[in-house]
This record gives sequence, C-alpha cells and structure tokens, in this order.
Amino acid sequence: MEPLIVSWLRDRYPLSDRLCVGIGDDAAILDLTDAPRAVITTDMLMDGIDFEVDRCGPHRVGRKALAVNLSDLAAMAARPVSALVSLALPRSADLDFVKSLYLAMDRLAEEFGITISGGDTNCWDQPLVVSVTAIGHVTACGPLLRSGARPGDVIVVTGEFGGSILGHHFDFQPRVAEVLQLHREFELHAGLDVSDGLSLDLARLAEASGCGAEIDLDLVPIAPAARTLGNQDGESALQHALSDGEDFELILAVPPDSARRMLREQPLGVPLTRIGTFVTGSGLTQHRGAGPRTPLIPRGYLHGSDG
Amino acid sequence: MEPLIVSWLRDRYPLSDRLCVGIGDDAAILDLTDAPRAVITTDMLMDGIDFEVDRCGPHRVGRKALAVNLSDLAAMAARPVSALVSLALPRSADLDFVKSLYLAMDRLAEEFGITISGGDTNCWDQPLVVSVTAIGHVTACGPLLRSGARPGDVIVVTGEFGGSILGHHFDFQPRVAEVLQLHREFELHAGLDVSDGLSLDLARLAEASGCGAEIDLDLVPIAPAARTLGNQDGESALQHALSDGEDFELILAVPPDSARRMLREQPLGVPLTRIGTFVTGSGLTQHRGAGPRTPLIPRGYLHGSDG
Repeated sequence: MEPLIVSWLRDRYPLSDRLCVGIGDDAAILDLTDAPRAVITTDMLMDGIDFEVDRCGPHRVGRKALAVNLSDLAAMAARPVSALVSLALPRSADLDFVKSLYLAMDRLAEEFGITISGGDTNCWDQPLVVSVTAIGHVTACGPLLRSGARPGDVIVVTGEFGGSILGHHFDFQPRVAEVLQLHREFELHAGLDVSDGLSLDLARLAEASGCGAEIDLDLVPIAPAARTLGNQDGESALQHALSDGEDFELILAVPPDSARRMLREQPLGVPLTRIGTFVTGSGLTQHRGAGPRTPLIPRGYLHGSDG
Repeated sequence: MEPLIVSWLRDRYPLSDRLCVGIGDDAAILDLTDAPRAVITTDMLMDGIDFEVDRCGPHRVGRKALAVNLSDLAAMAARPVSALVSLALPRSADLDFVKSLYLAMDRLAEEFGITISGGDTNCWDQPLVVSVTAIGHVTACGPLLRSGARPGDVIVVTGEFGGSILGHHFDFQPRVAEVLQLHREFELHAGLDVSDGLSLDLARLAEASGCGAEIDLDLVPIAPAARTLGNQDGESALQHALSDGEDFELILAVPPDSARRMLREQPLGVPLTRIGTFVTGSGLTQHRGAGPRTPLIPRGYLHGSDG
C-alpha cells in the first residue's frame, strides 16, 4: 500500500486517549456508563458479491458498508455510537480510492452522530473486502427483538420493496431515527430490517416468535424499481417486492391498538403500511383482500449460498 | 456454500434473547452495567498474507484470528467479554473446514471466558478472509494506554522475541491474564502488545508518550526460534528479536520502584525482563551494558505495506 495512504489514515484517525485508534493494533474505549447495554453487529462486504467496485466506485461501497450495519442496529432499536472499519484493499487502490471510501463513511457517520473509532487496514492481491462493526446501545425503551411478535399483532412495514439492485441497495436510508421515534411513541413487540427479502425475513421473524404470518398481497408497498425490474425480466413487480432483498426497510410487529394509531398518525417521513397480521400456527399465508388463503413459500437471498 | 454449513452454524450459534445471533443480519446485546467502559478492537486476517490456509489448516487460522484480538485487548489491560466473527469463505470450504475454524475459536473463547456472539458468514471465489471484532471492558484499574510512559520508567517485556514465523505466530498466548494481574498488583504507566516488531512497537509507544527509549541490547530476551531463523538466513538472532513481529508479548512502561519489585517477584508464569529505560527526548537509542549509545532505527512489519 502507498505510504501516502498510511499517513492519510493516521492523520485522519489519530491516536488519542479517549479513542485509541491506530492501523493494525488498536482498541477503542467507549464509555457506556449512561447506557450500559451495548448492541454490536458486524457485516462483511466483498467485491463481486455485494458490489462491483469498478462499476459503482469506492464511495458507494464505503457508504453501503456502514449503512448495512446501521440498519442492523435499527432492527434492534439501538442507538448507534461508533463503528470500526477493516479493509482488505486491492494493490491497485490508491489514495484517492481510500479517501473516497472513507469520506463516504465519514459523511454517513456524521449524519448519524457516530464516530469511526478504529479499524484495521490491509492490502493484498485480491478484490476489496470491507468489514464494519457497529456499536450502539439499547435505549430506555429496551431492545427490539425478533422473538416478540404475538398472534394478533399487525405487520407494519416502512417504505417500499423490490428492485433494490437498481440502486436502492446503495442509497437506502438506515431506519435508525424512524425506529427510535416509533419505539418511544408506540408499543412495538418485535422487528427486523429486510436484508434478504420481505417474505424470507418475515418468515424468520414469525419463526423466532413462534407464530405464523398472513400477508395481504394487495397491501404490499411495491417500489417503482420493482416494476422497472419486472418489465425487464418478466417477473411480477409483486414477486420482486416479496423476494428481492436489500430493501433495508423495517418489519414491525405492532399490537392492534398501537398499530391503528400509528397508521392513522403516520408520524414518519416515510410511509408506514399494514401488510398483514401475525397469527397462531407457523409459516406464511398469502391472500388478496377477502380472497382464499394459501401458503406462501418465503423467497429471498439465502445469505452465503449460491442462489 | 453448502446448506450443511449454514445449518451447522445456525444450530451452534442460535438466535436467543440474550445474544441475538444470526447469519447475516444480527446484533448481540452485551450488558456492561457493571463495567460500562467498553474496549473494542478488530483485526482482519487474509489467506496469503497472515497465513497460508493450505499449509496451516483452518484450525490454526481460527485460533490466530481470535488470539490477535485478545492480544489487542491485553495491550489495553481490558478484560475480554465477547467476539464477533466475519468470514469470506472460499467456495472450496466444506463443513469440516468451517467446523475446524470455529472449533478452534470456540476453544480459545472458552479458555478466556468469552462468548462468540455473532458474525457474518459469506462465500466467494477468492481466498479466505477472517475478520474478528473483540469486545472487552476496562477494569477498576483503568485502561492501559500507549501514551502514559514517562522518562525514567523502566521498559519491561514479557516472554521472548523473534522467529515467530516458525510457529509462534499461531501458537502464542494472548497476555490477558498476565496484564490483568500486573495491573492489579503493580503501577503501570503504559503498554502495548508487539505485533509488528519489538523495536517498531517500542518506538510507537515512546512516540505516543512524547519521550525516547534506550534499549540495552544485551538484555533483549531472544527466542530460540530467532536463533534457528538466524542460522537459516544469516541475520543475527538479535536482529530477528528486534524486528520480526507477531511476538504478541507485552511492552510495559513501569515506574522504577514498581519495576524493581515486579522483576524481583516475577509473579507470572512467563518471565518479565527489563530491557531498558524511557528517557527524555525522542526516538530509540541502543547500547550494550555500559558501552556507547547510538541511534536504533526501528524495524518491523509495516502493516499493510509491501515490506
């Protein structure tokens, strides 16, 4: 790696007593006295799998690498505090490349009020790998878990689904502020963020909660990109919305009274939509309005698998 | 990746309310109420750079990936609590490979009383990458920083140096118990773990503390492996001890009274050795006993660089 890169990183993320940050050997000290229940999550993104850096550029990679971790914290209703960044840089990466990657992360970090408090920067003859660990803390409202949904809870989602590969998987907004506000103002039983597909992640939430879930297909908010993609590949926009993944919107289990109020008030900048109900039993069921109920096979991106 | 690997990981590291662990989207909750100053560190190891998995096997890779992070916590005198593991697996990796890698980490985790509380498992057509983030907490004695050394402090090291490439870089023992005991029983001003080379890391500690350091070359504890390597490549064993790196022993800045008692009592299973003194000024100075003092150019592994 260019000495320029090393010195730029050292200048930008210097050693300090509060946050001991270095290249290689390093550890950050985070004072969690006021909120001692830490929430920690990590995601690794690889060139050729999660992005193609030659096409999208290092800026979008840097933003995405941090954003997916912030989304994981949002899924737990945790307030982000800090992040660590580990890089395996290809030898072709020059200072501009590294700057672009880091500045995108810095911008997002600033937007979410967190610090980049360390990391490990390496170089090799292989494609780019970015591994980010984000640390947050549980708020006074407690954590939001996957396992808290109960039969009768309303399935509420933020935003729209499908077609994220056309750009949203880079540009999405981690729903941190949104979930913290909802958690303060409404009773929430469970939640997660949709990384692998609406139907697949909903099935996971239902399974973790020991219940089933019924979706009204007429209610699923479909992103314009899902329609565009459907027009290209012949699959329905709804199918894209149910299975594409990387929407990074929230699925919430909300008790009925709370849901009614939430849906009426629409307190967020992003729409909240009821798409169904958690029920006794297991698995997913689909229907359209008052039409017949049939099983819905969850589809999505099976993380780490070939398909 | 084989479905077998996914199901093995899910069975071994299941979702739970206390530690929410999954593959992909996941966050762990750590209750730090009793010790709310968290210490967080991360290291990424790559096939062909930090190990050659075809030669050493996944077991040694798994152990090393966690051990280097534990060593970083030891450098801060932090007590380890938990770790997250992110993997980019080559497609050739089968279940036995993954089991071997994880079981080595589990064994070390158990030895140090920590949990593996999450991670992110991925698969690609490139070599193995293992990124571990370790979380610890500051003890009642406070953190040990690089910046606390003062002129007059004695330079004390644990263990022996040099030749770690012959095996020690896999088999080393993170000095966690050792540093916590020393921190309780003696006054320590500063410390770090030697990852990049005794002289290079000592220079970093001195620089962070705004002082210089004098080493008596006759006092440097030289590992047998440094002599073996010296016999092979013609470099002196001392040179190997000063510059090889990945010793993962501790350099400590200890005030004179404390150092006298510590060196006399030898309270650890591993030897403690005085190798010199921190002094006013900057940079490293070398001498042999009462001989002349000359500048010592720090040498070692420049992290992320070509040489």
